[in-house]
Amino acid sequence: MTLIATAPPRVVDRRSARAFVDTHVVPYADDYDRSGRVPEDLLRQVAAAGLWAPFLPPESGGAGMDLVTLGEVHEEVGRGCSSLRSLLTVHTMVAWTVQRWGTPAQRERWAPALAAGDALGAFCLSEPGAGSDTAGITTTAAARGDGWVLNGVKKWTTGGQRADLFLVFARTATSIGAFLVPREAPGVEVRPIDDMLGTRASMLAEISFRDVALGPDALLGPSGFTAGMVLTGTLDLGRYSVAAGSVGIVQACLEASAAYAAERRVGGKALAELPLIQAKLSDMVTDARAARLLLAEAGRLKDAGESGTLMATWIAKYFASTAAVRHAAEAVQIHGANGCSPDYPVARLYRDAKVMEIIEGSNEIQRITIAGQAERETTS
Amino acid sequence: MTLIATAPPRVVDRRSARAFVDTHVVPYADDYDRSGRVPEDLLRQVAAAGLWAPFLPPESGGAGMDLVTLGEVHEEVGRGCSSLRSLLTVHTMVAWTVQRWGTPAQRERWAPALAAGDALGAFCLSEPGAGSDTAGITTTAAARGDGWVLNGVKKWTTGGQRADLFLVFARTATSIGAFLVPREAPGVEVRPIDDMLGTRASMLAEISFRDVALGPDALLGPSGFTAGMVLTGTLDLGRYSVAAGSVGIVQACLEASAAYAAERRVGGKALAELPLIQAKLSDMVTDARAARLLLAEAGRLKDAGESGTLMATWIAKYFASTAAVRHAAEAVQIHGANGCSPDYPVARLYRDAKVMEIIEGSNEIQRITIAGQAERETTS
Amino acid sequence: MTLIATAPPRVVDRRSARAFVDTHVVPYADDYDRSGRVPEDLLRQVAAAGLWAPFLPPESGGAGMDLVTLGEVHEEVGRGCSSLRSLLTVHTMVAWTVQRWGTPAQRERWAPALAAGDALGAFCLSEPGAGSDTAGITTTAAARGDGWVLNGVKKWTTGGQRADLFLVFARTATSIGAFLVPREAPGVEVRPIDDMLGTRASMLAEISFRDVALGPDALLGPSGFTAGMVLTGTLDLGRYSVAAGSVGIVQACLEASAAYAAERRVGGKALAELPLIQAKLSDMVTDARAARLLLAEAGRLKDAGESGTLMATWIAKYFASTAAVRHAAEAVQIHGANGCSPDYPVARLYRDAKVMEIIEGSNEIQRITIAGQAERETTS
Amino acid sequence: MTLIATAPPRVVDRRSARAFVDTHVVPYADDYDRSGRVPEDLLRQVAAAGLWAPFLPPESGGAGMDLVTLGEVHEEVGRGCSSLRSLLTVHTMVAWTVQRWGTPAQRERWAPALAAGDALGAFCLSEPGAGSDTAGITTTAAARGDGWVLNGVKKWTTGGQRADLFLVFARTATSIGAFLVPREAPGVEVRPIDDMLGTRASMLAEISFRDVALGPDALLGPSGFTAGMVLTGTLDLGRYSVAAGSVGIVQACLEASAAYAAERRVGGKALAELPLIQAKLSDMVTDARAARLLLAEAGRLKDAGESGTLMATWIAKYFASTAAVRHAAEAVQIHGANGCSPDYPVARLYRDAKVMEIIEGSNEIQRITIAGQAERETTS
Repeated sequence: MTLIATAPPRVVDRRSARAFVDTHVVPYADDYDRSGRVPEDLLRQVAAAGLWAPFLPPESGGAGMDLVTLGEVHEEVGRGCSSLRSLLTVHTMVAWTVQRWGTPAQRERWAPALAAGDALGAFCLSEPGAGSDTAGITTTAAARGDGWVLNGVKKWTTGGQRADLFLVFARTATSIGAFLVPREAPGVEVRPIDDMLGTRASMLAEISFRDVALGPDALLGPSGFTAGMVLTGTLDLGRYSVAAGSVGIVQACLEASAAYAAERRVGGKALAELPLIQAKLSDMVTDARAARLLLAEAGRLKDAGESGTLMATWIAKYFASTAAVRHAAEAVQIHGANGCSPDYPVARLYRDAKVMEIIEGSNEIQRITIAGQAERETTS
Repeated sequence: MTLIATAPPRVVDRRSARAFVDTHVVPYADDYDRSGRVPEDLLRQVAAAGLWAPFLPPESGGAGMDLVTLGEVHEEVGRGCSSLRSLLTVHTMVAWTVQRWGTPAQRERWAPALAAGDALGAFCLSEPGAGSDTAGITTTAAARGDGWVLNGVKKWTTGGQRADLFLVFARTATSIGAFLVPREAPGVEVRPIDDMLGTRASMLAEISFRDVALGPDALLGPSGFTAGMVLTGTLDLGRYSVAAGSVGIVQACLEASAAYAAERRVGGKALAELPLIQAKLSDMVTDARAARLLLAEAGRLKDAGESGTLMATWIAKYFASTAAVRHAAEAVQIHGANGCSPDYPVARLYRDAKVMEIIEGSNEIQRITIAGQAERETTS
Repeated sequence: MTLIATAPPRVVDRRSARAFVDTHVVPYADDYDRSGRVPEDLLRQVAAAGLWAPFLPPESGGAGMDLVTLGEVHEEVGRGCSSLRSLLTVHTMVAWTVQRWGTPAQRERWAPALAAGDALGAFCLSEPGAGSDTAGITTTAAARGDGWVLNGVKKWTTGGQRADLFLVFARTATSIGAFLVPREAPGVEVRPIDDMLGTRASMLAEISFRDVALGPDALLGPSGFTAGMVLTGTLDLGRYSVAAGSVGIVQACLEASAAYAAERRVGGKALAELPLIQAKLSDMVTDARAARLLLAEAGRLKDAGESGTLMATWIAKYFASTAAVRHAAEAVQIHGANGCSPDYPVARLYRDAKVMEIIEGSNEIQRITIAGQAERETTS
Repeated sequence: MTLIATAPPRVVDRRSARAFVDTHVVPYADDYDRSGRVPEDLLRQVAAAGLWAPFLPPESGGAGMDLVTLGEVHEEVGRGCSSLRSLLTVHTMVAWTVQRWGTPAQRERWAPALAAGDALGAFCLSEPGAGSDTAGITTTAAARGDGWVLNGVKKWTTGGQRADLFLVFARTATSIGAFLVPREAPGVEVRPIDDMLGTRASMLAEISFRDVALGPDALLGPSGFTAGMVLTGTLDLGRYSVAAGSVGIVQACLEASAAYAAERRVGGKALAELPLIQAKLSDMVTDARAARLLLAEAGRLKDAGESGTLMATWIAKYFASTAAVRHAAEAVQIHGANGCSPDYPVARLYRDAKVMEIIEGSNEIQRITIAGQAERETTS
């Protein structure tokens, strides 16, 4: 088996994540972007490195990785390729949900496959007419026999072109339920969405469900359980991963810019000696650190099981995503015409970064949400 | 002749330019962007509308359009498609140069063809290792017989894939000269540059000159004339056109965003009723106006022959290009996930805008240059 | 009479305004700021220069100055001293109101005195609990006999400590009326407001009206006339004057910073040679020009009687006031520790500028209002 | 002794610091600002709380407080009053210097008095013609006998009006030396600098040294020791304290704004319900957290003795001081006209914050310095 020969070491921390990303991702990320897909080969490498769901407990096939470390790992992946990180984000959300809220049978059926990357998960919440907003969900799950019939359309499903398992939020007679829907279920149709501005290799799709018949075990959790808590928790985890990826983008901007500025000369001087360039670099250094600290703080609160992690994650994601956009624009600027060319990664970073300000809660939603914290925010 | 039947009316002012652009450009600009070229058919329509060089005097085939109006026209083109506007910009620079500094013979040979769009011009200054900086020019023009032999490589040549006439800056034994080089001259090789971040349909190329033999009439202007003044004047005009195009981008962001915000509803309200969206729209309105006034001021000074136009143009380009980047990012944000999709023009605007901060003098150069004005800037 | 000997020339345009300000205002503005008042002597000089209400027609004692020129004049005053400009602003609002909406008798009684500066006007709209918002007006004017009795408290009345005539907005039985109230009317009490952040010499006051008996001629305009239109027009003019003053602040920042940067040396170099300082200067140059053009555009529309002037004035005020705050902060920064000291004007500019973002409609109100223009804003 | 009766509890951590500040500082800070001094009574309270130099070891009269905690304590003081925090900053620098680099005799003589607040220290580096730049030092210390004669002028000496002990940097025959100069030494003259923009109660002074005769023990450290390392270390600590104070300003802005926005109603709604206000509050929450984390990181590295603390402190100070300026401007804006009045603390915060961008290394110096880190900044 040649796979064994080339299998990467397991990723267990930032350092090993960094090595994995530098070897397997960084050199090819622009190709993925151009081709609009992450190749199967890389997905297998990710599996071999144990990267799909290392936070799952060992009995589910994971490594029990804590969330501070998971944040560092997703940051590293995001530094290399936001499309791959996006796939990881939604897969993480699905695996987490199954583990945390699934019945024992659901966990048993899905968790090991999700941990091994044998099944990739995708998260189906947004619909054509609504954002990340449950009030606008029109997809329905009607009870039939002891099971369900699903109808509706989900849009902007990251990884939808490739995923094996969809976590679908749908309206039941009484509330919102979360359903585990295998891609091969009859009536599931996947329509690729291409030509996006950023994360072009994240294999986005629109997913239609037409009279998709599901058994009783498709409804996540025990009977009577509703999806509100799932959504809060899962979106929080998604936001955490996007925040991590955004820190990775800032870091990638910094590394690319520092390298270019050190080497590129104008009028006999390296760019790195020019104060207007230095000002940009210093802001990248500063914001990369601040963003990383905010992320780690959110991770610590998660690992400690403190409810403050929700707000800390909003804040980390808001700070990191806006920083990513700002610094990606400056990274292109530092590179000049080269920065607009396919020869350097910064044009991709500029396109990918913009997506971060929109997904998993737009900046505008974040600025309203975080304000709710203002009154409670006294040092004590 | 079917062309006559479909020939657009001549563009003589902002209003007719707007009509032309709304009819012939706006509906197709995203297609151009995706295909990486402006189609021949549109180039013919531009010719039929008299848009290639309307500022030339009637005897050269132009309409004697003043520069305030030219700025308005280029703004309108830029509102529709920055790639087409880029082609127009470099063509304008070449046509202007021939008219203003060419010998009577050069004018006679090239101006009518440039006015009619029978010959498209491109501007060859930048080289792989240098920006818009004459000190770094390594392309050489060696005297041979009564003519010249050209050797070197030019990069980032807008329209280079399609142009018929290159205006090439090269080092002679004594100074920098500007040369008129037909594309079909033996030794000229055109290598397309694709996959750029923005103005993807502007048909960028790298142009190599290998022992290109030129006659004595290839050197622009009378004997002994050097290219310094040409460069100052021509880059100024290019900057003016880019400034105009940048105003057009801001305007396009405003129009797209206002329309989307009026129609898209979230939680029962139109986006246009949400203060965080209104704040973005108001900033677009404000900066569009300010940028347009700065542009018009530069144009007025040009038409009046006042030397202050150089600084006024720097300022207009600096203001307009930074505004374009800022507002394109906000326009995408207003559109949310749709803004990242190919279904709306704003993702293209976001990519195109960034180029404006780099070409014809980067923001960094502008901020140094404009500062030189500070001490002289007392109202009086 | 010594006054004749020292009387300044009439101010008729920007140039004469600049000379007046450089002679009579600039050298003393920091003293006014520290003492918290503009001295009587300066108020007399302003009168002698014909500056109080030059826009009034000659028959009312004015010079028929157009509003473009008035904007330039107020810019120059604002460049020298925002406190004096504030006095001018509210006086302008009152004189304009009397001229435009007053009965012939009211015009005859007040206009010449306002033109000559024998009576200074102040504008009483804001109340302790409400901003510039008629809905919140609690001051009442009850009909009594053929006149009125006024009760209530007005706050933040610029010039209130010194004014002779108050234009007071009060609630009548049926609507909002505007009343001309001489300071010496019994029951009028003036309480100075000191220690403000900025425009510290603008002699702010809280004005109480306790059973102030007024004749029938105190109500502005013909019987049955209500104050809505007055407010719209007068606040617009006030906003125009504040916009002009804000342009003046930007210009003052630019002039102070350019001078300081040219002279102050650090490590053997003038500050003006350092790119990070140059970047600040270039932004001041750019925004000063843009703000001035927006102001002139609003003035042109006023002179032409076009309704678009309302929006143009909102835009000019929004742009200029935010620019003033931004550049005043940078002007202090350029001056370093000296910038925080009383030896340079920039600390005062920093304090004064902030007021501009709040008065006559805060930025937040402006950003909502201007957004209303977005949909109408297509070039055509 | 009444002092015992009112003596505040010792400050040992953030919580006790917060209590001290809320009781003894917050209610009076605006009075200090207006009067231009921190009263003796407060200085005694600070002493009683053990706040002057708690980081000193117990044997020197301190409490061995670690630097993370010291940062939290200085943040709390800065939240209440930047002038008091400034006094604490320079005193900290002097006490630290004596402890760290002083001879045993110097430590014995000065440390206990500095710990107890019986002697207040001030730091004399800047001169009229130079910033925080040793190259520009013109103050001289000439050897005479076994001692020294000091001549020169120091400017912008925080606390200079009140300090008992000056740490003076002066040029010797061979290098730069640091001298401990008691205020009562003949030839020392203190000239107050008043009317500054911010930290108005920090009792700034210009200090002249005219033939000030000093003994051999005035030169800090063992013979031959030069001041370079002292400066690096002491300015780093000063920067850390200013960074902490800046975090305190951001926090004060947040607390004042959240309280005002919750209570103030406009058009029937609390400000806190308006999205444009919420956006400002959310940015304050976000930046307060980021700044605090950056500060804590710098403190951790100090406590661990890692050299990376220098850069971490630059970064914390840069981030926190710019955040302070931005949010103080927004805090005033949220308060509207009230924000410009003496009835709320935010106008003071706006003035104080600006000073933070200038002292202990201006933003411009920081942006150059931090850029030097860019190349080394790879995650690993």
